[in-house]
Amino acid sequence: MKPSPSPLYWERESLLLFSPEGGLLSPLGDTILVDERDPVEMHRRFAGKIEVSVKVPVRGTQDFAIWYTPGVAEVSLRIAKRRDESFELTSRWNMVAIVSDGTRVLGLGNIGPEAALPVMEGKSLLFKYLGGVDAVPLVHRKRGLDEFIDLVKSVEPSFGGVNLEDIESPKCFYLLDKLREELEIPVWHDDQQGTAAATLAGLINAFHLVGKDMRRSRIVLLGAGAANIALYRLLKAYGVPPENIAVIDSRGVLHPEREDIDRLLFTNKYKYLIALETKGAGLRPGAGPEEALRGADALVAASRPGPGVVKPEWVASMARDAIVFALANPTPEIWPDEAIKAGARIVATGRSDLPNQVNNALIFPGVFRGSLDVRTRSITDSMVIAAAEELARYARETGLREDRILPRLDEWQVHPRIAAAVAAKAVEEGVARKPKTYSEELEDARRIIEAARRRIEVMLREVEGGESAPR
Amino acid sequence: MKPSPSPLYWERESLLLFSPEGGLLSPLGDTILVDERDPVEMHRRFAGKIEVSVKVPVRGTQDFAIWYTPGVAEVSLRIAKRRDESFELTSRWNMVAIVSDGTRVLGLGNIGPEAALPVMEGKSLLFKYLGGVDAVPLVHRKRGLDEFIDLVKSVEPSFGGVNLEDIESPKCFYLLDKLREELEIPVWHDDQQGTAAATLAGLINAFHLVGKDMRRSRIVLLGAGAANIALYRLLKAYGVPPENIAVIDSRGVLHPEREDIDRLLFTNKYKYLIALETKGAGLRPGAGPEEALRGADALVAASRPGPGVVKPEWVASMARDAIVFALANPTPEIWPDEAIKAGARIVATGRSDLPNQVNNALIFPGVFRGSLDVRTRSITDSMVIAAAEELARYARETGLREDRILPRLDEWQVHPRIAAAVAAKAVEEGVARKPKTYSEELEDARRIIEAARRRIEVMLREVEGGESAPR
Repeated sequence: MKPSPSPLYWERESLLLFSPEGGLLSPLGDTILVDERDPVEMHRRFAGKIEVSVKVPVRGTQDFAIWYTPGVAEVSLRIAKRRDESFELTSRWNMVAIVSDGTRVLGLGNIGPEAALPVMEGKSLLFKYLGGVDAVPLVHRKRGLDEFIDLVKSVEPSFGGVNLEDIESPKCFYLLDKLREELEIPVWHDDQQGTAAATLAGLINAFHLVGKDMRRSRIVLLGAGAANIALYRLLKAYGVPPENIAVIDSRGVLHPEREDIDRLLFTNKYKYLIALETKGAGLRPGAGPEEALRGADALVAASRPGPGVVKPEWVASMARDAIVFALANPTPEIWPDEAIKAGARIVATGRSDLPNQVNNALIFPGVFRGSLDVRTRSITDSMVIAAAEELARYARETGLREDRILPRLDEWQVHPRIAAAVAAKAVEEGVARKPKTYSEELEDARRIIEAARRRIEVMLREVEGGESAPR
Repeated sequence: MKPSPSPLYWERESLLLFSPEGGLLSPLGDTILVDERDPVEMHRRFAGKIEVSVKVPVRGTQDFAIWYTPGVAEVSLRIAKRRDESFELTSRWNMVAIVSDGTRVLGLGNIGPEAALPVMEGKSLLFKYLGGVDAVPLVHRKRGLDEFIDLVKSVEPSFGGVNLEDIESPKCFYLLDKLREELEIPVWHDDQQGTAAATLAGLINAFHLVGKDMRRSRIVLLGAGAANIALYRLLKAYGVPPENIAVIDSRGVLHPEREDIDRLLFTNKYKYLIALETKGAGLRPGAGPEEALRGADALVAASRPGPGVVKPEWVASMARDAIVFALANPTPEIWPDEAIKAGARIVATGRSDLPNQVNNALIFPGVFRGSLDVRTRSITDSMVIAAAEELARYARETGLREDRILPRLDEWQVHPRIAAAVAAKAVEEGVARKPKTYSEELEDARRIIEAARRRIEVMLREVEGGESAPR
């Protein structure tokens, strides 16, 4: 192990409670001294981030008779008689598969399932900490579309939900659509729906602040990857006329008269459909971002790391009170101060160290919490919009400002609020197996999420304070 | 919920710590009052048995930068460069998939994947409690052999090992053989290898007690399902000549001149091979258990629930100091007192409430612990035999008696001992990625297993004593 420069992460004696082999409370466990600025070493010393825990009391091996044989036989028979009982008698109700083929991991590209695994474990940590959801990474080697779908369908009985993650575009669109259609449990692709919903929430509040009607405004989406294609679809479902939305990829605006339009039908039918539906938003075929932004009310850039991808003069040419979302990571397409100097009134990015972070972790924990708690059969577009609207509403209720159009992740109440809105909408849409009211779910979600977070914090306090440390 | 007759399982106030929604430490959680004699209600109130936990410290959302983005990117890149690093930088090293198609669940038959799930969760509980292993149920809908294999192969990057469970015979033989061949992680089928290894350990000690050489004795296996076919293979690998082993199914001894021998080649090639290899153990074609047992030294019955399946007069006809294992559940093929009255000297069953329980839970936790800890590429037959021999040795060292040929499950030292023996054998066989000595693994396994069990017990103490209960 390499020497640990300060600051050390866990330097106290009470650290004895941590063992790297999967868990706390090792009396003989070795002390973990490791530089928190070295994530690789952090991961190595803790040997991964998640584990499987027993959540029922076990007094001794005699209790296997309750939880295993012979007791479990009657439980199995109940489910054999009525399959949906598996959501009530097993952990399935709260168990989500985080499914990835590793074809588009973070900004790292197609690095394969093994290399995707630490990211999926990180996602599992977020799922638990923010949403109280049990999420199991399922990275796999299936590359064909139908094979991928077939795999997920075949393991459906193990899970209460499916979270698709880090899958290349345009593959991810078909996958999501098809799986939503075929599975009887909620299916979600965070890079599409999570990002789109968080962005929609930000746009709702930004338009609210500048006093414009989003449905009558001109919106430019720069970049036509998973995030913006999903955003386009969500904006349309939200009621923005397609003709008001210009979607621009590296060859310019998607337009029915674009040179490569026939080829798009085969290479990316999602772009093809957008071209037809938006009719190029009134621009000429071949128009680029410079032209598209002239007089536009809002820009959502989800393209490639900046700065310099979006030019200040383009922003200057936008309508009064321009809204600029520059969402590329790690560096936004244009720095916020530059955009504001150029005339933007509200700027958002994907970064946690800047104001107005558009973060899908504001959305997915609550969406899954609410969906799982009413045992929904799917997550409809209306439920996604309900999540976005609730997120926007929460931000307004707790103090909307131009530099606070969205809450921070650690404003804990936001997640149960979204859960409640999603659950209520699922009931309204008729997809809930176990209906609950908004206020019932608000209370349930709070309790479940707080219990999950408290458990992690208790572990932490034990480490720091050594409260329960053996001598 | 139906009324709870006494005895109540958790009747104390401090029970507040338990919430049914996945975990302890819910300050507002509802009290769980439930009759422990009603496993269905126990399962319902706790809403399943396992959960996914975070095993690393999280001080707040700022720590997502270590465990998720941007910190995790470097971790992924390391694994992209060297895939085996996934065993060191993620939880994969300790993560086992419990894979079942639900075609032969307990004694309940083909009840499907959903109904198999509570059993798999129970197995996961045993994995953690006895072996410190993180085991995730993966029940699925793949019915074809090649599809089943393909599914497991494709999710291999998520796991450090595979435990096949409750799969019908003869499908399970081919599955295990093929997956052992094709995967680079340990693959195990407990109904074959676990039961066979525990039985072999019992036989080793039984033959030791009666002073006979197992390799020169006549052994009758009654029943030709997963357990006995696997036992036959293991006995052969252990050095018992096939001609000394009579394997009997419902149509009599497997014999090369049996009427249906040609059909067996297609319906069950494993039985076919046994017929050829054993040559019917010197019996006439068509001989049944009555004939086979005349003068035999040992009987291992793993056939169908008794009593009355094995007749006392058959036992009486066996050789002096006869050994009788009657392993059917819930009722042995012959009750032990009957067998002993008929002349058997040593009797074992599958029941925990009788002496000499042959229990695969004595084997699989240690086998996986040891295999995972040296990152073995497979579990060889020699490793299975090493586990059986270590189990037998442990029982001898701690007091061998005719009514104690095997230890009980809660003799905790047995599991690390088996882990150490398996790990050492893996190193010897050249299949270990991360070699360790017997004594290194003995210490590591003890620490990991004790930490897992203590964690469950701490949870229980909190429930019972309310030590950390909020007021």
